[in-house]
Amino acid sequence: MSLDASIKEIRQQVADLHAELPRNDLVVWTAGNVSARVPGHDLLVIKPSGVSYDEITADAMVVTDLHGNLVDGDRKPSSDTAAHAYVYRNLPHVNGVVHTHSTYATAWSARGEAIPCVLTMIADEFGGEIPVGPFALIGDDSIGQGIVETLRDHRSPAVLMRNHGVFTIGRSARDAVKAAVMCEDVARTVHISRQLGNPIPIAPADIDSLYARYQNVYGQEPAA
Amino acid sequence: MSLDASIKEIRQQVADLHAELPRNDLVVWTAGNVSARVPGHDLLVIKPSGVSYDEITADAMVVTDLHGNLVDGDRKPSSDTAAHAYVYRNLPHVNGVVHTHSTYATAWSARGEAIPCVLTMIADEFGGEIPVGPFALIGDDSIGQGIVETLRDHRSPAVLMRNHGVFTIGRSARDAVKAAVMCEDVARTVHISRQLGNPIPIAPADIDSLYARYQNVYGQEPAA
Amino acid sequence: MSLDASIKEIRQQVADLHAELPRNDLVVWTAGNVSARVPGHDLLVIKPSGVSYDEITADAMVVTDLHGNLVDGDRKPSSDTAAHAYVYRNLPHVNGVVHTHSTYATAWSARGEAIPCVLTMIADEFGGEIPVGPFALIGDDSIGQGIVETLRDHRSPAVLMRNHGVFTIGRSARDAVKAAVMCEDVARTVHISRQLGNPIPIAPADIDSLYARYQNVYGQEPAA
Amino acid sequence: MSLDASIKEIRQQVADLHAELPRNDLVVWTAGNVSARVPGHDLLVIKPSGVSYDEITADAMVVTDLHGNLVDGDRKPSSDTAAHAYVYRNLPHVNGVVHTHSTYATAWSARGEAIPCVLTMIADEFGGEIPVGPFALIGDDSIGQGIVETLRDHRSPAVLMRNHGVFTIGRSARDAVKAAVMCEDVARTVHISRQLGNPIPIAPADIDSLYARYQNVYGQEPAA
Repeated sequence: MSLDASIKEIRQQVADLHAELPRNDLVVWTAGNVSARVPGHDLLVIKPSGVSYDEITADAMVVTDLHGNLVDGDRKPSSDTAAHAYVYRNLPHVNGVVHTHSTYATAWSARGEAIPCVLTMIADEFGGEIPVGPFALIGDDSIGQGIVETLRDHRSPAVLMRNHGVFTIGRSARDAVKAAVMCEDVARTVHISRQLGNPIPIAPADIDSLYARYQNVYGQEPAA
Repeated sequence: MSLDASIKEIRQQVADLHAELPRNDLVVWTAGNVSARVPGHDLLVIKPSGVSYDEITADAMVVTDLHGNLVDGDRKPSSDTAAHAYVYRNLPHVNGVVHTHSTYATAWSARGEAIPCVLTMIADEFGGEIPVGPFALIGDDSIGQGIVETLRDHRSPAVLMRNHGVFTIGRSARDAVKAAVMCEDVARTVHISRQLGNPIPIAPADIDSLYARYQNVYGQEPAA
Repeated sequence: MSLDASIKEIRQQVADLHAELPRNDLVVWTAGNVSARVPGHDLLVIKPSGVSYDEITADAMVVTDLHGNLVDGDRKPSSDTAAHAYVYRNLPHVNGVVHTHSTYATAWSARGEAIPCVLTMIADEFGGEIPVGPFALIGDDSIGQGIVETLRDHRSPAVLMRNHGVFTIGRSARDAVKAAVMCEDVARTVHISRQLGNPIPIAPADIDSLYARYQNVYGQEPAA
Repeated sequence: MSLDASIKEIRQQVADLHAELPRNDLVVWTAGNVSARVPGHDLLVIKPSGVSYDEITADAMVVTDLHGNLVDGDRKPSSDTAAHAYVYRNLPHVNGVVHTHSTYATAWSARGEAIPCVLTMIADEFGGEIPVGPFALIGDDSIGQGIVETLRDHRSPAVLMRNHGVFTIGRSARDAVKAAVMCEDVARTVHISRQLGNPIPIAPADIDSLYARYQNVYGQEPAA
């Protein structure tokens, strides 16, 4: 496929995946963004800054290089583009990144507290706790560095950036969106469980067993 | 009705009932599943593994035997099929099974705590507390055994599997879906009530009276 | 208007008002019901028992006398009809009754705790606290008596029946539905406020002033 | 543009923006209202009193002077018009005002407690805590005075009026609606974070840096 055709297809995928964020109650107003790497090129496709979810179309998406410089599109890229770009530069197996301020995950992040692995679905999808990354200001590579350094030590595709929100990664943009949806779902369930007592931990060996099975057996083909 | 016609009808019912899960906010992404027994045959109809709720049609449903082996359909059955199959093998009056990770019920399950009977609607539908089943790994009959052994001692059609989620049973698949909806509704209401104090218990004799009445008088015909 | 024309019109109103219950998240599955008095006759119109909100049409509604006996319609009346009928027999100014198990209001009822008047919107609509009625079994006039005796001592059009749910009354069925919507909204807001401390009470004279103004000035004509 | 054409356009904007209130779950029944100043004239456009969100059209909106007297329209203006008018008389840079009883923000207001700046999105949009205004009865300028005096000391475009609800202001009516949406979102996230511990404060210098950047860099053009 030509680069033009590939970008056209990815613009459509990224536009379609953005619809999952409001649909799954992960965002309000113009917050949140999804990006995808253009395979084989130092390019990514992302949402423009401050644009309403009603206005998101394939054509409205923008293309930048992996330092966040606009390459194609009419509008300014998302103000989170630098963080996405840093992830793609440093984690070559990642092809999709999602950022949200989803409520329960962000509530854990504001306390600087990881989400413990007390549900089989956390073991399945995250392979252990969902970790917390550092407090970082927007404007340079601080957020990107915080994401990459935190995720390197965990199987989790999600990181709670302190006082801020969630970043998720995936081998595809769809996988990163799935991780964002699951992260909020388990953040909410564990929060509610903890309100009335202490959830029972799952033994590390059981977590390993659940994670291995889910990553290899679940779905219609090996997780991709 | 021929077996083929019967299966065709049940595929449609099971596909339609799956729509109730997202509609009642019991599932996110591809989680959750509904199955129905094929009456008079050692067969069940269930959702394929890892399939989106948007893609669910009668034709997409799969047919397995009561050990979870694929009999008809293009896709791999739900990874929870073994648990459904075990229930049908061991509880002959059950014709429908539902599994979800619905938030409030799962939050109770993560603490290993039964939902107490403190609402008339719990007495009506569940006839007492909603019990907790054991922690069990996926992959053999452990989950199915946990469901069956727990429900044998209770009037409740719902069981909270520890650190995991909810299974419900019914004389029809629709009844099992109703139990899943009601289970999450009461899990949420009792949780919220408990946040600010102690709900008042209902006397056992009143629970019996409410349960007997609801099972026999409510609706347009005897509960089926 | 003839009695037939009047009943036809009220069937349509009652069917339309039922749609407000799921729309405002006050009910799940088949729970909840709205009734209206047939003015000048000892008759009421109500939802049949155990019927899905998707199936509610004007024709599906049933007509009973003020002791709950079926007068017109194909189906068995709601199992709560006796309570509605008792209210109409004993409170002649009431022309509409609503019953729900809405989550937050029911959570207060399970603790047997009234909702304190700590919001201007509670003063406006309820004129003080929303009171708790007794625990009562379904099947005779106990529920109706509990509603009437509790509301006689309060300005509130809503009563929290212990361990059960909410009943609201109104000079019209639409007013009773509004009271049910507002009751859940304030039950939720006060619950959430109380989770992190103590809401500040509103002085009784201010409650009186707010109530008098809202009942007489708000909206496009005097409250009816 | 003529005054007539200008009013026609603003009626449409105000009608359209009202749809954002139920869409973002900020209101129930007929509560809540949005107004806009008619630029260059001592006039505002607002919703009529007690009107359902389904009935809101450009034509249904009403025009009043900046003391709340009806200038154009068939219906009585919102009972909150005096508060909106007071804001426009006293804050000349404000062109839009929104009022809601959104749940979490109102819960903070009932305790008379400001929302602390513990999330980067609070720093971005509100530039510090979201303050509490006084308890004030409806009927004179008390509410308007409370709003103006409280907001004068803060960068926040939102104020929590004690035991009542939220008022937000903006350089446009759309900005005021955005502030109302963001206010509820952060009220909810900080509430949930506080339920299980203490959110970590953000240093004042970081708040200043985040606020300055967001007000000047975010979106497709300088914030307007």
